[in-house]
Amino acid sequence: MIELDSTHDPALQSWVTNANNHPDFPIQNLPLGVFAPLNGERRAGVAIGDHILDLAACAVHGLLAGDALRAAQAAQGGTLNALLALGARPRRALRLALVGILARGSAAEPQAEALLHDAGACTLHLPALIGDYTDFYAGLHHAMAVGKLFRPDAPLLPNYKYVPIGYHGRASSVVPSGVPFRRPSGQRKPAGQAEPDFGPCRNLDYELELGIWIGPGNEPGAPIPIGSACEHIAGFCLLNDWSARDVQAWEYQPLGPFLGKSFATTISPWIVTPEALAPFRIAQAARPEGDPRPLPYLWDDADQQAGALNLVLEVLLLTPRMREAGDEPHRLSRGNARDAYWTVSQLVAHHSSNGCNLRPGDLFGSGTLSGPTPDSLGSLLELTESGRKPLALPNGETRRFLEDGDEILFRARAEAPGAASIGFGSCRAVVLPN
Amino acid sequence: MIELDSTHDPALQSWVTNANNHPDFPIQNLPLGVFAPLNGERRAGVAIGDHILDLAACAVHGLLAGDALRAAQAAQGGTLNALLALGARPRRALRLALVGILARGSAAEPQAEALLHDAGACTLHLPALIGDYTDFYAGLHHAMAVGKLFRPDAPLLPNYKYVPIGYHGRASSVVPSGVPFRRPSGQRKPAGQAEPDFGPCRNLDYELELGIWIGPGNEPGAPIPIGSACEHIAGFCLLNDWSARDVQAWEYQPLGPFLGKSFATTISPWIVTPEALAPFRIAQAARPEGDPRPLPYLWDDADQQAGALNLVLEVLLLTPRMREAGDEPHRLSRGNARDAYWTVSQLVAHHSSNGCNLRPGDLFGSGTLSGPTPDSLGSLLELTESGRKPLALPNGETRRFLEDGDEILFRARAEAPGAASIGFGSCRAVVLPN
Repeated sequence: MIELDSTHDPALQSWVTNANNHPDFPIQNLPLGVFAPLNGERRAGVAIGDHILDLAACAVHGLLAGDALRAAQAAQGGTLNALLALGARPRRALRLALVGILARGSAAEPQAEALLHDAGACTLHLPALIGDYTDFYAGLHHAMAVGKLFRPDAPLLPNYKYVPIGYHGRASSVVPSGVPFRRPSGQRKPAGQAEPDFGPCRNLDYELELGIWIGPGNEPGAPIPIGSACEHIAGFCLLNDWSARDVQAWEYQPLGPFLGKSFATTISPWIVTPEALAPFRIAQAARPEGDPRPLPYLWDDADQQAGALNLVLEVLLLTPRMREAGDEPHRLSRGNARDAYWTVSQLVAHHSSNGCNLRPGDLFGSGTLSGPTPDSLGSLLELTESGRKPLALPNGETRRFLEDGDEILFRARAEAPGAASIGFGSCRAVVLPN
Repeated sequence: MIELDSTHDPALQSWVTNANNHPDFPIQNLPLGVFAPLNGERRAGVAIGDHILDLAACAVHGLLAGDALRAAQAAQGGTLNALLALGARPRRALRLALVGILARGSAAEPQAEALLHDAGACTLHLPALIGDYTDFYAGLHHAMAVGKLFRPDAPLLPNYKYVPIGYHGRASSVVPSGVPFRRPSGQRKPAGQAEPDFGPCRNLDYELELGIWIGPGNEPGAPIPIGSACEHIAGFCLLNDWSARDVQAWEYQPLGPFLGKSFATTISPWIVTPEALAPFRIAQAARPEGDPRPLPYLWDDADQQAGALNLVLEVLLLTPRMREAGDEPHRLSRGNARDAYWTVSQLVAHHSSNGCNLRPGDLFGSGTLSGPTPDSLGSLLELTESGRKPLALPNGETRRFLEDGDEILFRARAEAPGAASIGFGSCRAVVLPN
């Protein structure tokens, strides 16, 4: 069972302006990140309402002690890798200390107030140097839907329900929310065309995923057992696995996705900790009755009882015309992280089961988190059946795939009885012309 | 045309003991690496015979100036990433300066002699922090042979002759020569078995590849044109893409190799520069007559005329019984890097063609470099037809795949008229029991 403590209490309030009832960052969240004030250096921070508290400054000004101080001191040099490497205890101590500093009535308020930055005036960077980025395929409904498009006769391959399918992704092109990217070029070979040609991607898509940050990790040759996998999960983010469908379709056999994915991956820059997400953990129930039981190296009773996350995930689209008209972004779908076929602990145990070493700051993508209903499909490939059924937008526009100037936004919302609800912040990017 | 200079002259001799006629590291080679003397810190060095010259010490002692000094000064902190980032000019200047220091008759001999380390007493480390590791599939004969085993009806997929097929590999488990690794466990599903099980890999294999180190690289969204791709190639190494064939066969669809490869990749630790390899560049001739002409973004006349490497590559096996008996390693095959279907410049241009940013210290694998003849197959998968035809070793042992305690060694040898021949040094590792 997950133990909740006073840090999850919805009655807990902060003295920071706008923090209480903030959709993403009330005092019950306290995600970790790396920011830079205008003309300032990169530094570690924690999001609180519309502000960012400077962690290193908290340490310097004597607001932290013990394990919490150790955690803040590790978060130096503009990346959180060394903090992630410390594991859960110092991270929890830091959370408790930060609640003590930021809660209404704290004696530290006058000192801490001077260490707050207006988030809107800061640049958010990647929170860690990503050693390796691995993208999984844990969305069963996505795998089924995509499988139907690519292999109508065998949508789900025989290994899917045994192996947490994944592939190595490109670490260099993972960027934080807000960084636009250029529409990629690539080889395409449309049906009916005898030979491929090279040019701008015509079927540009997004994929709604959860990102997972790895903590301490393992030495080569020493797999992480499923029972202790959660100790290596340092936090979560939103992840957009941008995909050039026409490039992907032509290139992906036999070695998997490559240039169809490697041009950009956008993540929300705040690391939402396992502690903040504790109230939203639920039993793993995405495995249909009658499916094969996972092999022993992937099975843990405690993980099955509380290894899934009840986290609502939304995709929104803002087209240039909508932007000009001042329209709100239009919601394309709403899914839930609980629909993942494999828990995050299963992904960690599987990834290291061959002795592969995971390192602090490694990033996993969950795979596209589509749900079973038409309004919960996490990519345009699924929503438009590979472009055959264009989407109609409220302003009369239609979309098969993404057009230049389109912006995709992801939002997360965690809600549970007896806990303050939290979010993940922004995961958005605009498609620039080729 | 490649311009050779006096640094390639076979008559050029060094004052360093054993350097002249050294099979790998005569003065005409001068590969760059990172080493640590006993109880010393990691530092940049250059191999000369059985010795290593300390680069930073050369800079401190005033043996270098100008661009060469700049290059040596960049090689700080125990990685060569910043040196690779500088590109060709400083690297060439460093080569010329080092020849000046190490050539017989050099006035710098007395000073430089004190900066030499006995290579046998040093530990060799990875020469750079590998941001991303990409493994290509440029060996046509390998792709044909493996394709026949997995898909007898369609050995070569329709995209092979248009797309330089590749996939993202695992950077964390790339290790330098000499580091043993544990036999991986994984899911296997042998033919005839209804469900997979989990256990030690039964079909452990090697793959003979050339490694390519990336130099300056590109910004996101700014592809590297084929005509300037060679400016981004910083050097070469040998690369063993260890492969768990049973794990790979069960997991690889639809997203490609993952845990079947990610447990270990061994490389030779010296970066052999394009300058050292200039005499061995030849016209690209691995593309059979009648094959489709590469698309324009992959075509460059100069690259076609001199973009292939005439480099003999050998695989040797040393079993525990051979080791005990004092036998020499047994040669399993001999291939040549010129059999790659794509040039290295084509790999660089393709990889960045979608805007994916390459970074200094990125590593490419060429793909298995098998030749057209049975004695030139670069993996046991090919040599034993997936274990069906065991190899007979001279001492009476047989091998389907690798046994515990087996050691695989790669060797490279470059020879050309009018040039001193050079090698790459050691790329070897022992399989430890699971």
